[in-house]
Amino acid sequence: MFDEPIEKLIEYFRQLPGVGKKTAQRYAFYIIENSKEKAENFANAIKEVKDKVKLCTVCGNYSTTDICPICQKRNRKVVCVVQEPKDIISMEKVKSFDGVYHVLFGTISPLENRGPNDIKIKELLARVGKDGVEEVIMATNPDVEGDATAMYISKLLKPLGVKVTRLAQGIAMGSDIEFADEVTLERALEQRKEI
Amino acid sequence: MFDEPIEKLIEYFRQLPGVGKKTAQRYAFYIIENSKEKAENFANAIKEVKDKVKLCTVCGNYSTTDICPICQKRNRKVVCVVQEPKDIISMEKVKSFDGVYHVLFGTISPLENRGPNDIKIKELLARVGKDGVEEVIMATNPDVEGDATAMYISKLLKPLGVKVTRLAQGIAMGSDIEFADEVTLERALEQRKEI
Repeated sequence: MFDEPIEKLIEYFRQLPGVGKKTAQRYAFYIIENSKEKAENFANAIKEVKDKVKLCTVCGNYSTTDICPICQKRNRKVVCVVQEPKDIISMEKVKSFDGVYHVLFGTISPLENRGPNDIKIKELLARVGKDGVEEVIMATNPDVEGDATAMYISKLLKPLGVKVTRLAQGIAMGSDIEFADEVTLERALEQRKEI
Repeated sequence: MFDEPIEKLIEYFRQLPGVGKKTAQRYAFYIIENSKEKAENFANAIKEVKDKVKLCTVCGNYSTTDICPICQKRNRKVVCVVQEPKDIISMEKVKSFDGVYHVLFGTISPLENRGPNDIKIKELLARVGKDGVEEVIMATNPDVEGDATAMYISKLLKPLGVKVTRLAQGIAMGSDIEFADEVTLERALEQRKEI
């Protein structure tokens, strides 16, 4: 329906996560309707990210330097283990956390044929030895695969004398008990605390 | 929180219509996680659109040629008047329509200080004279401004002997009477048809 350059741009926008045809058209029209300068800056920002961003050689977070700012500045004795770099964004909202991260890039998942060697577990063990890590906080997702991965890693780490903890699971702050699912409520009940 | 190139890209994604911080981050991570080639093609598609797409000199639709494919091939005696180029996308889903379009780029809106000279009405009148237009279909939005603009234009066109029509207003196909708003129901009742 559109001329080829417009269709092509719509196609690229559609490849973004969660973007359908209608939304992609809206984005393409935004580009068309705005200044050429803005469009060029946008295009250059996309290229620049690919040119400059790599993985931190210590933790696996996205970084423009070999070692990311978090690994450079913070307490390496406490390592928070996450599944993906984007989980670091969420964790970083907790201002009180002063430790560093380790990105696994996935979970152990027999169903999807991913074993312990397919995620960055070896690298975690190496860090624990090298940096004298005292505590590893498992922040994998609270689902079957996340739990299993956390358990697997804790079994490897405990013999090394490292404290391994897991983010508490329970009802979310500000949520309604009425709408909480049964699995969450069951966990919350199991792990209830005296007050 | 992120290195500067990532933050910059997130900022550009945020400027897209309806995109918040979280969505912009997801888009930026998609770029980071995918191949360099894909990112370059995406960036080039953005630039290409700005380089090649202009407005059709006849109807105002987006086009890579001086005269858009629709104006080149279709029946110029029937003109469908729309507010914005994106409305043409929706109208084009009606496969049976063989006429051409005219984009007003807005509506008359006293509240927003837009008079008849601020939208492409003069250009429409010129086309009507030049192309021997027989029917003008007003497809402006069914709201106060769209209705007023349609009325205004019809008053200009009728003395020229042109048939002016307006898209029918009523309850949408597949919708529920239960959830229809009162204004829509009132219109549907006023314009009821014998069956």
